[in-house]
Amino acid sequence: MRGTVLYGPRDIRFEERAEPKIMNPTDAIIRMAATCVCGSDLWPYRGIQAIAQPTPMGHEYCGIVEEVGSVVKSIKPGQFVIGSFFASDNTCPHCHAGYQTSCQHKEFVGGAQAPLLRVPLADGTLVAAPGVPPDDLLPSILACSDVLGTGWFAAAAANVNPDATVVVVGDGAVGLMGVLSAKQMGAGRIVAMSRHPTRQKLALEFGATHIVTERGDEGVDRIKQLSNGVGADSVLECVGTEESMMQAIHCTRPGGSVGYVGVPHGVELDGQELFYTHVHLHGGPAPVRQYLPKLINLVWERKINPGKVFDLTLPLD
Amino acid sequence: MRGTVLYGPRDIRFEERAEPKIMNPTDAIIRMAATCVCGSDLWPYRGIQAIAQPTPMGHEYCGIVEEVGSVVKSIKPGQFVIGSFFASDNTCPHCHAGYQTSCQHKEFVGGAQAPLLRVPLADGTLVAAPGVPPDDLLPSILACSDVLGTGWFAAAAANVNPDATVVVVGDGAVGLMGVLSAKQMGAGRIVAMSRHPTRQKLALEFGATHIVTERGDEGVDRIKQLSNGVGADSVLECVGTEESMMQAIHCTRPGGSVGYVGVPHGVELDGQELFYTHVHLHGGPAPVRQYLPKLINLVWERKINPGKVFDLTLPLD
Repeated sequence: MRGTVLYGPRDIRFEERAEPKIMNPTDAIIRMAATCVCGSDLWPYRGIQAIAQPTPMGHEYCGIVEEVGSVVKSIKPGQFVIGSFFASDNTCPHCHAGYQTSCQHKEFVGGAQAPLLRVPLADGTLVAAPGVPPDDLLPSILACSDVLGTGWFAAAAANVNPDATVVVVGDGAVGLMGVLSAKQMGAGRIVAMSRHPTRQKLALEFGATHIVTERGDEGVDRIKQLSNGVGADSVLECVGTEESMMQAIHCTRPGGSVGYVGVPHGVELDGQELFYTHVHLHGGPAPVRQYLPKLINLVWERKINPGKVFDLTLPLD
Repeated sequence: MRGTVLYGPRDIRFEERAEPKIMNPTDAIIRMAATCVCGSDLWPYRGIQAIAQPTPMGHEYCGIVEEVGSVVKSIKPGQFVIGSFFASDNTCPHCHAGYQTSCQHKEFVGGAQAPLLRVPLADGTLVAAPGVPPDDLLPSILACSDVLGTGWFAAAAANVNPDATVVVVGDGAVGLMGVLSAKQMGAGRIVAMSRHPTRQKLALEFGATHIVTERGDEGVDRIKQLSNGVGADSVLECVGTEESMMQAIHCTRPGGSVGYVGVPHGVELDGQELFYTHVHLHGGPAPVRQYLPKLINLVWERKINPGKVFDLTLPLD
């Protein structure tokens, strides 16, 4: 089969790769229905993050189960399934606590940009859809695999509550999914910090009530103005730079919460500065597995349309 | 009157100071019943934190109201009152959210190591005890002013819940109060990380169920052993150094919480490292005012005896 492999900065090749086989009795092999490019792929693509060796790309996936290992019980060939970027057993204490991306047996799932994918710990990792989705639902189902689940976690980590004032820092796909998630959680006001007209439009469609184009200290001042000088209750950090992290922290009211899901690159937090902000800080690699059943259901019932976040569809090659 | 003044590292003088007067109609003047030395005084005393000018010492206080400003309504001369190190109006949005130490009109209260003290924003800041406490209750009443309230906030910020496994990093007065607070909140297991026999003894008396003497990575390993490899649900960081902060973070299970109240000195947090720990981080200057009514009541009914944390009693001079 042929799949994409990252060789180095701006060097992606579509080349022959060995077909994946069942290696452990807990594995499944899936025939891809759709996959995509993640914001986190851009760090190594741009050379900001080193890679040790040529690396098969793609960790957002859904498709039909082709084969399962001998001890796999809940997943069966023929089912349409969705999984996330970390395989997890869903039985260890960390999984039980809802942090499947810290599973004691976690394994990264990579190489989804190919016709077939091996998924370890299939029973814990994969969630079956109610059936094979119609083509028009496919983008939204695919979004559950990472970008929607990550935006959802950002909102959950930021303690979004009904009537809260929510700020979303970052208008990439994850930030837009953060807007959608905050809306689903009943937030009263949702401020998208965005400079790009196309993304502003989508943010408004997903539930944003305000757009702020300023960044840094000016952006923080605008948020303070919008909240009677108080600051936001919940702020979603969806970028991962030092600037965006500080912007998020300073937008938050004392006692408010920052949920951060942008993989931090070059972020150093000064302990004393953080101390005096009185914010709650929580984040990390999103435990998408926790949210998959709920998110698949919301998509299946057409209550949300996260697939709109994808702006380009291409054949694999 | 005579009071203590910090001039520089290891240079504290007991000297003549002007008696405080009502400066604003919201002030009160209190005649001190007792005051004490705070762990945070040790930073400038040791020269680790610079001071701009000679500074009157003492920010933990209780005593009898001598005089109030013209608009003070709820506090009256003759009442025995307790306040905390930040004066707060207790009416602004931050106060309403329970973060009185981020009050929009906060003022630091200093100079309590003297016979008389001016307390700004008296109505918001001071809480009256049910009466004048008997002498044997005085240390515990004084403890409410800072050290107990700070330990309580550490436990609250670390989301201590009934049956939680709690770890307290730091066996100073605040750490010991953290143990007492976790016990009051119903924690199942409370591990005090302590090397000092006298503090271990007090920790056990306050409710610790385990003592761990190891620090750093070895300490973290011991906590993992005690928790089946999972880590603690709630960790109280009561020191403020880089080492203690990392020890606290690494003792915590993914999804668990670190409550940090040691004023950070030289603490830098690596964003990416923090990201992958999946911990909740919350702390800051403890909003003691929020807890004062409850804590005074617990002391008054002799349900807790936090005054034991003081190990030396001296006349002011």
